[in-house]
Amino acid sequence: MAPAPDGASALALGIDLGGTKIAAGVVDASGRILGRGHRLTQPQEGWEAVVDRMVAAGEEALAQAGVTAEALAGVGIGSPGPVNPETGVVVEAANLFFKNVPLAEAVAARFDRPTYLDHDARVAALGEYRFGAGQGATHLVFVTVSTGIGAGIIVKGRPHQGAHFAAGELGHTVVMPNGPRCTCGLNGCLEAVASGTAIAKLAREAMARGEAPILAQLAGHDPERVDARLVAEGVRRGDPACRQVLDQATFYLGLALAGVINLIDCDRIVLGGGVAKMGELLFEPVRRTVAASVVATGRQVPIVPAALGSDAGILGAASLALAPLTPGS
Amino acid sequence: MAPAPDGASALALGIDLGGTKIAAGVVDASGRILGRGHRLTQPQEGWEAVVDRMVAAGEEALAQAGVTAEALAGVGIGSPGPVNPETGVVVEAANLFFKNVPLAEAVAARFDRPTYLDHDARVAALGEYRFGAGQGATHLVFVTVSTGIGAGIIVKGRPHQGAHFAAGELGHTVVMPNGPRCTCGLNGCLEAVASGTAIAKLAREAMARGEAPILAQLAGHDPERVDARLVAEGVRRGDPACRQVLDQATFYLGLALAGVINLIDCDRIVLGGGVAKMGELLFEPVRRTVAASVVATGRQVPIVPAALGSDAGILGAASLALAPLTPGS
Repeated sequence: MAPAPDGASALALGIDLGGTKIAAGVVDASGRILGRGHRLTQPQEGWEAVVDRMVAAGEEALAQAGVTAEALAGVGIGSPGPVNPETGVVVEAANLFFKNVPLAEAVAARFDRPTYLDHDARVAALGEYRFGAGQGATHLVFVTVSTGIGAGIIVKGRPHQGAHFAAGELGHTVVMPNGPRCTCGLNGCLEAVASGTAIAKLAREAMARGEAPILAQLAGHDPERVDARLVAEGVRRGDPACRQVLDQATFYLGLALAGVINLIDCDRIVLGGGVAKMGELLFEPVRRTVAASVVATGRQVPIVPAALGSDAGILGAASLALAPLTPGS
Repeated sequence: MAPAPDGASALALGIDLGGTKIAAGVVDASGRILGRGHRLTQPQEGWEAVVDRMVAAGEEALAQAGVTAEALAGVGIGSPGPVNPETGVVVEAANLFFKNVPLAEAVAARFDRPTYLDHDARVAALGEYRFGAGQGATHLVFVTVSTGIGAGIIVKGRPHQGAHFAAGELGHTVVMPNGPRCTCGLNGCLEAVASGTAIAKLAREAMARGEAPILAQLAGHDPERVDARLVAEGVRRGDPACRQVLDQATFYLGLALAGVINLIDCDRIVLGGGVAKMGELLFEPVRRTVAASVVATGRQVPIVPAALGSDAGILGAASLALAPLTPGS
């Protein structure tokens, strides 16, 4: 199912399937999104209905781009997982109530085009690799720091899937064996220390102990208003507890990234997700910790912000169906 | 430089270049070593003289196998590094006084056969993958726990090199930010907690504090006699400090391996090196920690002892020059 060699093959439909929203886009070989479509996921209605809405979002994008499905080299899908890219099956996606759903086949039947599926974290990494902040890297790790922490690894243009298609679970690296409890049941996972959820929770606890006076003021003493963005604001205004929480988060995130560099020797790390929007407040201490913790080989591994925002999902999904950047790569 | 298609091509010469010794072997496609050769490395005499001794060891192996170089599909070399497998150059090997040595080219000129070079840790991993405890795995991580700790990663039959050919530095993952000083200058690297050197050093310190009475007896109160093997014996005989040192080493080794599994999703881990010879004293607690620390996906990742001992270097080096197991893999 190699993409057709004619000019029309330089278009692909990318579908980013999320727990609440579906975003679709018609993408050309240079990464322009020529048309977009959206639907709510409504997973409680069953997977066949979700496929209907994926197709509807795709048709909306095709209509906006002024093309028909025949013009597509193929369709790419990014889905929560684990997924099996070889069979096109979503093995399990708890937030979608999916279990062994033959998603690629179902979508292929509707557009009658070659259809590819991969895990959303790897798909977003592929988008940044091909069209965003990862361009030019040979070994890219894209780390999303959001409510959770996950990574997508791209080696020479291809997503590293892993033996069980489960690679990239960076968030559950234990960095503080006696640290805060993680949602996974362990203590001290990176996610329990450095995710947006964790940063907010740890700051909220400090506030409850009366240790975060400036944050308390910013939040109007309402714990529910404390999120990672507000903690960052607290740091800027000199709140000691916010500073301590963020120092801890960036230190352990930096240590974990240094471990990634030591182990797989990537040449770029892209950080995305809501927490990465803190900018230098996050990047500066993370870069400092990484520089101090990587095996000295003279290499410099740039750690840069994601460039595509939420479009990484559409662009990466489309990349699955576009011809590879370099023939045979 | 594809191996010749005839029967004779099913032989390769593997050369394992170490800081003190060179071992060579003529290897067939089933992993039998048909002839062996040995030399001392004597790196202080310069790299050209080292090449002479590598060639002499190789010729010894050929003579013992009763074949000439013409019978070889090629020659493979495992070297300390970093090395660049694409150019065949040893970029730097401090213990050999090598800097930018065109080792593959120099050896190729002498045997007149296609010659391949890779880093010794990856070469040993390839040996275990093809002929040893890694057979049948698709994503193998081979971890050597010896004076240092290093890893070789094999993905679908190919060594994962990394962007700077520096992948596998698992020993310098920081696992205890305030832990013991590592030779690399950082604190709390895995190597500073769980290598043979570290285990001996930490036990020696406990002995000096009077906390290791049984170990002191075993060592005849001579700190110089304390090595990882003796610490293991101390554990077996109930020494509390030896127990504490080994518990700490196996806990952090287990955490680090769980991190490897979470990140790259391998389906087998092989442990080799002197410390792994402790057997169940090491494997049982490591497996327990890994099982408790890996993201739950239902997968079981076997953690098994290396099978090839020091022959992994010869067999892996030869593998570089043997035809791939599966065509196109």
